[in-house]
Amino acid sequence: MDREICIFQEFLTDDHKARIRAAAEAAGFVPHFFTPDQMEEAKACVQHCEVLYAHSPELLRSAPATLKWYCCSFAGVDPYCKDESIFAAPDCLLTNSAGAYGVTISEHLIMVILMLMRRMPEYADVVARRGWSNQLPVRSIQGSHFTVLGTGDIGSTFARKVKLLGAASVTGVNRSGRTPGDVFDRVLPISRLDEALPDAHVLVMALPGTPETIGILSRERIALLPADAFVVNVGRGSAIDQPALVEALDTGRIAGAALDVMTPEPLPADDPLWTARNLVLTPHVAGNMSLGYTCDRTVDMFCEDLARYAAGEPLAHLVDRKRGY
Amino acid sequence: MDREICIFQEFLTDDHKARIRAAAEAAGFVPHFFTPDQMEEAKACVQHCEVLYAHSPELLRSAPATLKWYCCSFAGVDPYCKDESIFAAPDCLLTNSAGAYGVTISEHLIMVILMLMRRMPEYADVVARRGWSNQLPVRSIQGSHFTVLGTGDIGSTFARKVKLLGAASVTGVNRSGRTPGDVFDRVLPISRLDEALPDAHVLVMALPGTPETIGILSRERIALLPADAFVVNVGRGSAIDQPALVEALDTGRIAGAALDVMTPEPLPADDPLWTARNLVLTPHVAGNMSLGYTCDRTVDMFCEDLARYAAGEPLAHLVDRKRGY
Repeated sequence: MDREICIFQEFLTDDHKARIRAAAEAAGFVPHFFTPDQMEEAKACVQHCEVLYAHSPELLRSAPATLKWYCCSFAGVDPYCKDESIFAAPDCLLTNSAGAYGVTISEHLIMVILMLMRRMPEYADVVARRGWSNQLPVRSIQGSHFTVLGTGDIGSTFARKVKLLGAASVTGVNRSGRTPGDVFDRVLPISRLDEALPDAHVLVMALPGTPETIGILSRERIALLPADAFVVNVGRGSAIDQPALVEALDTGRIAGAALDVMTPEPLPADDPLWTARNLVLTPHVAGNMSLGYTCDRTVDMFCEDLARYAAGEPLAHLVDRKRGY
Repeated sequence: MDREICIFQEFLTDDHKARIRAAAEAAGFVPHFFTPDQMEEAKACVQHCEVLYAHSPELLRSAPATLKWYCCSFAGVDPYCKDESIFAAPDCLLTNSAGAYGVTISEHLIMVILMLMRRMPEYADVVARRGWSNQLPVRSIQGSHFTVLGTGDIGSTFARKVKLLGAASVTGVNRSGRTPGDVFDRVLPISRLDEALPDAHVLVMALPGTPETIGILSRERIALLPADAFVVNVGRGSAIDQPALVEALDTGRIAGAALDVMTPEPLPADDPLWTARNLVLTPHVAGNMSLGYTCDRTVDMFCEDLARYAAGEPLAHLVDRKRGY
């Protein structure tokens, strides 16, 4: 009987499909391709597939216990780790695409940080009323101190880029306190997070959504930030005490914030976040799949892991389902 | 009789003043400080000063022929080169502060280029109506081709930064075609500008305002740009055929633009630029003096040139009043 792969993605080019077909053939698999408008066909197909490459909790939930490996094309896999029952087989492998998002998300970070430093929320108001004023004090990446919560692909790629742009220092904070590579000036364990807040000009949050990260930027920790601090979150909205952040913005307790993730998403029309002071709000676009580089990388990562899977080797992008990343 | 300096600036800190006082004393000069609300006092003072450090055509115009050196704290000195009569003495020296603006203006450039690449004008509309959509295709600095018109401090600093961020290539275009430093992949003379347009993902314009740069981005040259091109201008608004640019934006002939300079400034309330498609408009803020680094650099440059002036050496930041930069 054929070993089969169900592929359910919206972004694949003909070139991507050709690469997946070649990798599947080399690994002894038959691939079946579906787009998001073919959910029912995909659900029928996944009944006899060993591997699923998608980013759909609904499709995964419909797969039987014969599914051995689910490769998610997103970096954040919290929807698959919160609830064991989403996998029919308790030992089904889960991989993610962390590593594909560093470039696009770090460019988003640089953009929103410069927008805050260069007063774009205020200048957007000036331009909207066709006014002309240009004397607001601005700041610079050059010479600023950054604290980066989460030192994975996104945090590390960002740290490397702002160092190249002249940042005075970049402090990483992660679970272990170990340094990934040499891009950070220092790395602290999460237990010492409070030490990395009082001198942060910019706090960047790039954490996975796990039970440990919920509410990690609490009201008490916001109070440790300096008055000129910017808070930027591209991880999960659940990591921030959102009402406390809105209060800190509106009272001028901190200088500004940029949120690409929030709670809940989509944000309700009456949420106070929409009108918070000096906030750059984006509707979860930082890791958008549309950047060619991102799509290429997730396809490459899947194909590479498929070769390892067929050879019985450990998968490079395996997620610890208990830990959540 | 004392040799005197009139200093007319809004941004000087106590530290800046102390540095200027020390440099003046070492050079054998007495400094007099005025802020913009003291125009009449400054005009009285400049009558017996040999040196003026300011950015005020009005104050310069009031100075007598005994003024030997005018140091402008701006980089763009076109207001002082268009009209000979602004200097009472035909041989009065003019220096500018080119070299102080590279950091702040290149950060502005990176910000607006990322805003265009990442569809911020469109996402700002989504957020303004409290909507939620996030599937617009985005692009990246990484892998993009840049053409930079003007390879002075601003163009060169920008080129260095985007190369560090992964730009595929940066072509410089200047008067001589000579390469300043090694930051550009190639440098073309202005006579070959047309060659550098068809493959430019981003055209950055950082030119001084001189008779030669007026209208340099003509309707014909806009037509040479690819459909996915972005045009960004931080030099002088006069360098662009503005009606042709608005037409190219509104018809989708090019992908977008970011203008920090325009014609005229301030922009009249009924100008079509306010409503042009995919345009990031800022009210001449890129080289804002408020960045501490910029202020520090212009003060340093004045103090260094003051020592040279007192020693009878050539000034480092001398402007050719005929050439205009």
